[in-house]
Amino acid sequence: MKVSIVGGSGYVGGELLRLLLRHPEVEIDRVVSQSMAGKPVGRAHPNLRKATALTFSPPDAWRPVDVTFVASAHGGSMGVTPKLLDAGGKVIDLTADFRLKDPALYPAYYHTDHPRPDLLGQAVYGLPERHRSEIRRAQLIANPGCMAAASILALTPLVAAGLVDPQRPVVVDAKSGSSASGRDGGPAALHPERSGVMRLYAPAGHRHTAEIEQETGLPIALSCHGVEAVRGVLATVHATARAPVDEKGLWRAFRAVYAEEPFVRIVHDAEGLYREPEPKLLAGTNYCDVGFATDPHAGRIVAVGALDNLMKGAAGNAVQCLNILGGWRETTGLDFLGLHPV
Amino acid sequence: MKVSIVGGSGYVGGELLRLLLRHPEVEIDRVVSQSMAGKPVGRAHPNLRKATALTFSPPDAWRPVDVTFVASAHGGSMGVTPKLLDAGGKVIDLTADFRLKDPALYPAYYHTDHPRPDLLGQAVYGLPERHRSEIRRAQLIANPGCMAAASILALTPLVAAGLVDPQRPVVVDAKSGSSASGRDGGPAALHPERSGVMRLYAPAGHRHTAEIEQETGLPIALSCHGVEAVRGVLATVHATARAPVDEKGLWRAFRAVYAEEPFVRIVHDAEGLYREPEPKLLAGTNYCDVGFATDPHAGRIVAVGALDNLMKGAAGNAVQCLNILGGWRETTGLDFLGLHPV
Amino acid sequence: MKVSIVGGSGYVGGELLRLLLRHPEVEIDRVVSQSMAGKPVGRAHPNLRKATALTFSPPDAWRPVDVTFVASAHGGSMGVTPKLLDAGGKVIDLTADFRLKDPALYPAYYHTDHPRPDLLGQAVYGLPERHRSEIRRAQLIANPGCMAAASILALTPLVAAGLVDPQRPVVVDAKSGSSASGRDGGPAALHPERSGVMRLYAPAGHRHTAEIEQETGLPIALSCHGVEAVRGVLATVHATARAPVDEKGLWRAFRAVYAEEPFVRIVHDAEGLYREPEPKLLAGTNYCDVGFATDPHAGRIVAVGALDNLMKGAAGNAVQCLNILGGWRETTGLDFLGLHPV
Amino acid sequence: MKVSIVGGSGYVGGELLRLLLRHPEVEIDRVVSQSMAGKPVGRAHPNLRKATALTFSPPDAWRPVDVTFVASAHGGSMGVTPKLLDAGGKVIDLTADFRLKDPALYPAYYHTDHPRPDLLGQAVYGLPERHRSEIRRAQLIANPGCMAAASILALTPLVAAGLVDPQRPVVVDAKSGSSASGRDGGPAALHPERSGVMRLYAPAGHRHTAEIEQETGLPIALSCHGVEAVRGVLATVHATARAPVDEKGLWRAFRAVYAEEPFVRIVHDAEGLYREPEPKLLAGTNYCDVGFATDPHAGRIVAVGALDNLMKGAAGNAVQCLNILGGWRETTGLDFLGLHPV
Repeated sequence: MKVSIVGGSGYVGGELLRLLLRHPEVEIDRVVSQSMAGKPVGRAHPNLRKATALTFSPPDAWRPVDVTFVASAHGGSMGVTPKLLDAGGKVIDLTADFRLKDPALYPAYYHTDHPRPDLLGQAVYGLPERHRSEIRRAQLIANPGCMAAASILALTPLVAAGLVDPQRPVVVDAKSGSSASGRDGGPAALHPERSGVMRLYAPAGHRHTAEIEQETGLPIALSCHGVEAVRGVLATVHATARAPVDEKGLWRAFRAVYAEEPFVRIVHDAEGLYREPEPKLLAGTNYCDVGFATDPHAGRIVAVGALDNLMKGAAGNAVQCLNILGGWRETTGLDFLGLHPV
Repeated sequence: MKVSIVGGSGYVGGELLRLLLRHPEVEIDRVVSQSMAGKPVGRAHPNLRKATALTFSPPDAWRPVDVTFVASAHGGSMGVTPKLLDAGGKVIDLTADFRLKDPALYPAYYHTDHPRPDLLGQAVYGLPERHRSEIRRAQLIANPGCMAAASILALTPLVAAGLVDPQRPVVVDAKSGSSASGRDGGPAALHPERSGVMRLYAPAGHRHTAEIEQETGLPIALSCHGVEAVRGVLATVHATARAPVDEKGLWRAFRAVYAEEPFVRIVHDAEGLYREPEPKLLAGTNYCDVGFATDPHAGRIVAVGALDNLMKGAAGNAVQCLNILGGWRETTGLDFLGLHPV
Repeated sequence: MKVSIVGGSGYVGGELLRLLLRHPEVEIDRVVSQSMAGKPVGRAHPNLRKATALTFSPPDAWRPVDVTFVASAHGGSMGVTPKLLDAGGKVIDLTADFRLKDPALYPAYYHTDHPRPDLLGQAVYGLPERHRSEIRRAQLIANPGCMAAASILALTPLVAAGLVDPQRPVVVDAKSGSSASGRDGGPAALHPERSGVMRLYAPAGHRHTAEIEQETGLPIALSCHGVEAVRGVLATVHATARAPVDEKGLWRAFRAVYAEEPFVRIVHDAEGLYREPEPKLLAGTNYCDVGFATDPHAGRIVAVGALDNLMKGAAGNAVQCLNILGGWRETTGLDFLGLHPV
Repeated sequence: MKVSIVGGSGYVGGELLRLLLRHPEVEIDRVVSQSMAGKPVGRAHPNLRKATALTFSPPDAWRPVDVTFVASAHGGSMGVTPKLLDAGGKVIDLTADFRLKDPALYPAYYHTDHPRPDLLGQAVYGLPERHRSEIRRAQLIANPGCMAAASILALTPLVAAGLVDPQRPVVVDAKSGSSASGRDGGPAALHPERSGVMRLYAPAGHRHTAEIEQETGLPIALSCHGVEAVRGVLATVHATARAPVDEKGLWRAFRAVYAEEPFVRIVHDAEGLYREPEPKLLAGTNYCDVGFATDPHAGRIVAVGALDNLMKGAAGNAVQCLNILGGWRETTGLDFLGLHPV
């Protein structure tokens, strides 16, 4: 299958390249980057040094392929993706531009009207654990946001089992590593300013709120923190229990949804250093580890989702979607187990 | 004033020493440590190398002084503090052993009956911002837990202004640095295992829950995470608003409580890299920075408290209490401004 | 091919497992660990959770296989390896116990007489870039130390091209990450003590000195530092030039030795953020990146070697040796490209 | 005494402010910053928030004071300092612009001719441990570079005692934290790129080479690495011994030079976690800790200097010079002991 990448010089573009270069069913046609056009791929992605002779292409060098990954800055896909679709190929969009079904949410959360609301209905929210069969038939796949993916995967079993009071806002306290700000993180991303922080950068109103509400049907109060790690998202979800629930009930709820999922592991151990999901273990993998705990004292359930923001939170999930499109084993090219310690 | 430290070889003991060696009104009589008895203080606390000729004393070398700081492991104070009080001096206890008023909470949260429930009523919860006048007259001061202090200081203005629905559990999502586990952190504290984590080590039921509930009167759902920093606690508090409230109302509520406090700064800026409280800025200081945000979408208020767990969360707050006991300016020996960047 | 691991619960054992579980030519027979016998492999190595049903075996459960990896503590192999050899299999030893040819060096560097000096001559120093053909025929392979491997690979081209004054000690200033201390790093490895250090823990006399001298024939002055990373070794080598040499001469010297090597990359770029080798890029990979610079002002050459101490500095190199033993493509099971950023 | 700061919005400017705000003998007149003119000091230096009402002044608002600190970018002082001197005050220059005595070194190391070579002779190299009496009488003090200060202080005792072979280049392997790149560190200073590095950014030819050679009279081969810490410099110095020397001889040499120095501590312990100087312990302090070891095997001496690059490597040392100028106790305003752990 022939694929191309638009926006190939950012961190997500680099991960797509790393995965696709080793993918047995895929040939990379073009890697488009305006700023790096003409330069070897290893200049932007030093881990790929000597692994490929690819160079970045200018935007106008793109030509029709089977699937194009769009890894531009948010907003950049609204313009280019319609053209790619018109050219007849499929698009896996890693920006936020086609994730929301309701056009009214774009001005609210992204401060812009959506230029192509007609495409929102046809776009599939690309979380295989929720929309696998639609992804298989999709022309346009909107890859989820990293904190949204972790939160949705933590909440889905609770919703499916009817354990959560749908009237009470679910508090999601999310932590993410510094790569989530991308290569243009600005002064806040400078090492001396970022090292060792627990930065509450979005106490409320973060954009991913809309995605989580769309997928779970629950009211969400999302707070986002930047912490020291480079990769990783941990979404700690605090929900009001509809009725008392014990650990067995939670195990049942999570197993019912994830028993067969290749990339979701239920982690809730009685002992050891990693009793609950931990993003540190997931760097470079496509896993989302999910866990849970009961808080009978407060009548609440804590659920938790951990992932690598550049993998299951971006490029890895996109390749998982590609595998579904291609009809291949879903783990193709995604079998890295992760490093410990790291 | 003559003071001694019992349990002087741990991290909190080291901070007490650092502060008291520079305190103009204080003379250190003994620094007791069973494990380090006879060794110079700089062996345990290399930052104090050559700053003092003090050596650690064995427990039986303690002799009556005006004030004794107890910085033992939790549980260790229950035995020693009654003896210190009997000897006629005052005690500032940095363990959890006398923080809770209700004896029934000790078996629930600390898995032990309290041997001296009679002392619980006389102990003063040593948070100056709430109990300054009682501290002034106290014999026994129970220094708050680090996550409790941050949470209580974030919540107090909301409670005082009646902004929070007291029927709905307040979610507190706390993050702390690695020094909070002390010098005996065990395998989980090993650098390769701890570096870069976002570890959810206590999804529910953490001991500090009881302190926060005692001081605020609100039902609390506390989740605790370990993150990469060495020092620092950030408590992100998610409360259900009793009625709609705007930023001005929150400013008023916080200013009403903290306008005159020397160690509580209200941080809620419109721009800059540090718009909300950030523990990274507070290492070595006795500040608790507090901030807030409204979440009208979810009908909630987010409040936040940041501090250095070894300072305002332990030794610094204890010295602040000592200053109150001594009738000195409350900032004596505590005027370090903090480092940026660090 | 059937393989076993003795000492499977440490960090090196974990990496061997991770690699061998995905290796297409290998079947793991036993993973021996005294301390963890009976427990699932994922308890010690949480990244392998759900990737394998293997449990640790007690030492007496070992049975003859084609190749046994010995990843015990240093000293532990002197006893067990002779027995494994007697049982007829091959051994890849990841300890220091058979690395040195001269028995007199063991009391000098390891404070112990060697119990089986007769085996030292038959052991092959397992650095494929220097001893590939001997490895192919070896019964006993002594896998190099991590700082030694980086230093030797940086120095080999200089020695081969006769660029270095063999009378003047070569200064090697090595930096390593915290995983190099293993799982039992002791108090010095505690996160609060280790985070952010530049610790000069061995100003002179480090054990790896002997290996580097053995392989290069040069007098070595080795200083070792612990720095903040979890994985990685950087060996900065400062050598006295025998005669003036320019960059072209150095390029020639390095290309002459490494042009065909699958796991040694020459990195010496004119621009970019990673102009010289950087271990951060190599976590999880089997690469040793080597680089160089001239210092005409001081009449010296700087060479540099970077690797992941658990991979090319331990488990990865051991699997590379296994591939040579097995006659397979040398990169089998070792094609991970590394993560950026991480 | 009235002082001003030119270039007050950078990291060094922030440290000067922090120290001078608490200095009992000093009144700050102006803090000049072109980019931040009109803004409160706490916007650039969040640790000073609410500690001062100072705002940044535009360059033309500077007026004559007793002493002006120049903390501009390198090169920026060449123009402004002559004017400040003409206005009759003294200048403590924290840039590199007046450190070197030989005008010919500026084009070699700084790629520019020096516009005022006449001032180089009158400038005093502001390292009190070497030039205290000249500093007392100076009009223009050139504050040392951070890696130069650590290296010179480590080497001075060896030179004074005649222990080093002056014909053989001394290898200095320096490590520094990320704040050394300042607030405009560029893409290389982005957290995801900088976190966990051991980056060899200057294998040879670093500018501080010239300062070290000027002060020690020895040929220097300096290699510079960036490591993970935010603050701190460790200079590991590898020198060829002129004759065999033992530890006692090194102790004597160091004590002879530093016994009375308030800010140089000799650290060479037989046990403990911090046996040699460690910058982690020095954050915020004005100490330079120095240590040493013998390497009889290679006939070499290892010496080591550790400091906080923003303190003894910049602002702290500048305030120490100010104290000498003012005739005050040299430790005035500089008595912070440092934090452990941090």
